[in-house]
Amino acid sequence: MEMTDSRFLRACRREPVDRTPVWFMRQAGRYMAEYRAMRGKHSLLEICRQPELAAEVTLQPVRALGVDAAILFADILLPLIPMGIDLEFSAGEGPVIHNPIRERADVAALHSVESRESLGHVLEAVRLIRRELDGKVPLIGFAGAPFTLASYLIEGSSSRSFVRAKRLMYGDPPTWHALMSRLARVVADYLVAQIEAGAQAVQLFDSWVGALGPDDYREYVLPHSRLVFDELHATGIPAIHFGADTATLLPSMKEAGGDVISLDWRTPLDWGWSVLGPDIAVQGNLDPVALFAPRGELERRVRAILQQAGGRPGHIFNLGHGILPETPVENVKAVVEMVHEFSVREVA
Amino acid sequence: MEMTDSRFLRACRREPVDRTPVWFMRQAGRYMAEYRAMRGKHSLLEICRQPELAAEVTLQPVRALGVDAAILFADILLPLIPMGIDLEFSAGEGPVIHNPIRERADVAALHSVESRESLGHVLEAVRLIRRELDGKVPLIGFAGAPFTLASYLIEGSSSRSFVRAKRLMYGDPPTWHALMSRLARVVADYLVAQIEAGAQAVQLFDSWVGALGPDDYREYVLPHSRLVFDELHATGIPAIHFGADTATLLPSMKEAGGDVISLDWRTPLDWGWSVLGPDIAVQGNLDPVALFAPRGELERRVRAILQQAGGRPGHIFNLGHGILPETPVENVKAVVEMVHEFSVREVA
Repeated sequence: MEMTDSRFLRACRREPVDRTPVWFMRQAGRYMAEYRAMRGKHSLLEICRQPELAAEVTLQPVRALGVDAAILFADILLPLIPMGIDLEFSAGEGPVIHNPIRERADVAALHSVESRESLGHVLEAVRLIRRELDGKVPLIGFAGAPFTLASYLIEGSSSRSFVRAKRLMYGDPPTWHALMSRLARVVADYLVAQIEAGAQAVQLFDSWVGALGPDDYREYVLPHSRLVFDELHATGIPAIHFGADTATLLPSMKEAGGDVISLDWRTPLDWGWSVLGPDIAVQGNLDPVALFAPRGELERRVRAILQQAGGRPGHIFNLGHGILPETPVENVKAVVEMVHEFSVREVA
Repeated sequence: MEMTDSRFLRACRREPVDRTPVWFMRQAGRYMAEYRAMRGKHSLLEICRQPELAAEVTLQPVRALGVDAAILFADILLPLIPMGIDLEFSAGEGPVIHNPIRERADVAALHSVESRESLGHVLEAVRLIRRELDGKVPLIGFAGAPFTLASYLIEGSSSRSFVRAKRLMYGDPPTWHALMSRLARVVADYLVAQIEAGAQAVQLFDSWVGALGPDDYREYVLPHSRLVFDELHATGIPAIHFGADTATLLPSMKEAGGDVISLDWRTPLDWGWSVLGPDIAVQGNLDPVALFAPRGELERRVRAILQQAGGRPGHIFNLGHGILPETPVENVKAVVEMVHEFSVREVA
């Protein structure tokens, strides 16, 4: 088939599809034995930096699950390394930054990044995956959004309250905006480079943006995310805008950009879509923990989401957040089958 | 003054007030030097168990800040101890439960609780605080909500994804409901006992309920929280229903009960109040991190919340969540003054 006619890309453009497309955030991950075997031999950074390994891990869930899209295996923090950030992926704790951003001078000291050089290994992985996929399903590229990257850079690790990030935001807005502006340019350049290398859609992960209310989002985040989406829009390639915990941010996220907005399980899909309006596609929104439920309960939840989508063009089935490490792989596979089975329809 | 004519209690009943009342969740805590001095000498559990110490810690912020209500110093997990739960307040990590609930037999093994006996020390603290407050400001009692307590009991510690709690909920609903039902009865009895001892309002803390979407809330939580609020309603004492991250849960939380619904900063106060309707009071909703902002920015945020409340009767100023440990005490004090100064109005 022509790749642009794939279910997933058609849904991104709100065109009718034969079945609802489905993929999963973190579909390559610890819940899969193949991935754990790979991680037994290689660190996360090694896999990200060796295109053959990144490609192999990217393809594992495509082979095992029958999903309608592949997503590049990488880490949202990778572009920070060529910016001069000393990043350590410590076991258990999540990534730790040894030289976090705390003041204006730290922002000024960040290096310029030429994605095509310093992140060339990611782009090589994209090219390799495209060759190996050979038109089977489209490949999604991705990057972290400026807010989520900035928060990580300032906090130095994951956080619950984002005290340091918000203190900088509220206390020194020029430095905040300088950092966000730098990140937006790096992210836009990196995503466009992924598209040039062959990514057929991209997702911007603003995983932590739900820590903000709508006024703060509009003042401190929206202009920078919009810069990224404006550059993506010029490529003609579909862009997915992901956030979690975003019930009150949806109109502003739409304004920032993206062809598809990802919803989490706290936002009922029908309610979220009605807030966003009919002129945009939506992605979501099964609770990742539902994948631990007995099969009947899982089926009930998959059906409920498809019913809320109501067969309207422009729904991509996904979780509201990434697959959790202990998830039973057979349940993930079952969801792919359920989505395809329950959503069969006549193409208009 | 008559206590029932206090600003805080009038606002709970949506009666006109001379100034908007203000208090803070976790207003007794590590951000205060007096509290740190007390904790240098006594563990959290010692303070909770010795009425004189609990009273002293409760009164510290009333003296220092000029808030319009005192809130009993206690921990939401206290009622779990007489239920037979082996609870350890370890430094840094937060409370850990050594015998978490994992199956039906664990629920059956929970002890019955007679609050007036096994939690008599809390009730004695309430009586002592009332005497020492001597009508200055009202005293708020509180308890954890069934969902938040159940999640803690099942997870055994704090959690990000609530995998164990939701697995039990989705996989074994009868056991989930049995546990919630036990907790609802304990909590209702405990709060009524606090009211009998002298609490003039009570707050139910459902701190973690924002992990759920509205359908799950309605099925697995609402009936149990409603049982608690129904018993509270019969006392005639105002009840505050607190949750964080609840933008999509508000109508269901209102249905569960409470005279006041607490909103966090993700939910704009005017939007949240319009979703809830005019027949209920609201509490909130400053971001706790705003207390770290420069004074001008903090003032801008306090004014914005008061403007959203629009001078309508039934607004209690508070944070969207508890005061953070490193918060500058002078900023907390300044917010009390700002709220009182900016909200002066003619009583109808």
